[in-house]
Amino acid sequence: MTNTESAENEGLLVRRIRNGTVIDHIDGGEALNVVKILGITGTTQESLSIATNVPSRDMGRKDIVKLANRELSKEEVDRIALISPRATINIIRNFKVCEKKGVETPSLIEGLVRCPNPGCISNTNEPILSKFRVTPKGLHCCYCDWVIAKDVPGHII
Amino acid sequence: MTNTESAENEGLLVRRIRNGTVIDHIDGGEALNVVKILGITGTTQESLSIATNVPSRDMGRKDIVKLANRELSKEEVDRIALISPRATINIIRNFKVCEKKGVETPSLIEGLVRCPNPGCISNTNEPILSKFRVTPKGLHCCYCDWVIAKDVPGHII
Repeated sequence: MTNTESAENEGLLVRRIRNGTVIDHIDGGEALNVVKILGITGTTQESLSIATNVPSRDMGRKDIVKLANRELSKEEVDRIALISPRATINIIRNFKVCEKKGVETPSLIEGLVRCPNPGCISNTNEPILSKFRVTPKGLHCCYCDWVIAKDVPGHII
Repeated sequence: MTNTESAENEGLLVRRIRNGTVIDHIDGGEALNVVKILGITGTTQESLSIATNVPSRDMGRKDIVKLANRELSKEEVDRIALISPRATINIIRNFKVCEKKGVETPSLIEGLVRCPNPGCISNTNEPILSKFRVTPKGLHCCYCDWVIAKDVPGHII
């Protein structure tokens, strides 16, 4: 890649936003899973910009997601750590970065992923949200002890 | 919105690509469904740029998808018509638009959506691809006559 092309790519990656959230340093190729984990699927009203697998000096390849007019809550931000622990979050107000933070792996996630065990009480008609402890081995169901060891995005409700 | 802001948005929507496909004039909010219909879901190796709900003089709001290093085939392009019939396709080579075309609704789609009828032969273990005729009323299963009248993206395999 020439310097010119690299500069062009860097300059024009995705539009600037006046207000909202920029999620940067997402693991290469994981942006669609990040928007899914934020509850953005199918037809959307959100003003969203996404770039995947762009060259990054530190990471080789990375993804970027910009979400206009929405500041993500700590709970939403930390869910991203489940699939992309190096992600950084920038809150933008009037084109300026007002807050910059990392993502912290949550210890407990409720109502985000479906337990793969069909017999789990969280899969019945009972009004019970799924609940998982986040452990080094994966997501551990608090009800039936099932462990989701891989493909967390594939289990998002 | 001021003129400056509008110009900025237009200028910086998503990065230019050297080679690949630009899908423009996607109905506002449908970009994630468009990438799904192209078979791009979850973790991806594709170099993708997406912008949703950007202001458009003709359409009010529109979405744009750019896909680097991949020229879509006619079959892939026409599938987009199922969810966004006004979409336009630009094939880019060395930063120049080499081909510009609309999308044509296909008359038959095979292996793209799952028949909602659990008893349909396309849902058994038989080696049979789903097959639907595209009619004004929706997608008509060639095997069991079930009609998918809405939410085509929700039925994509």
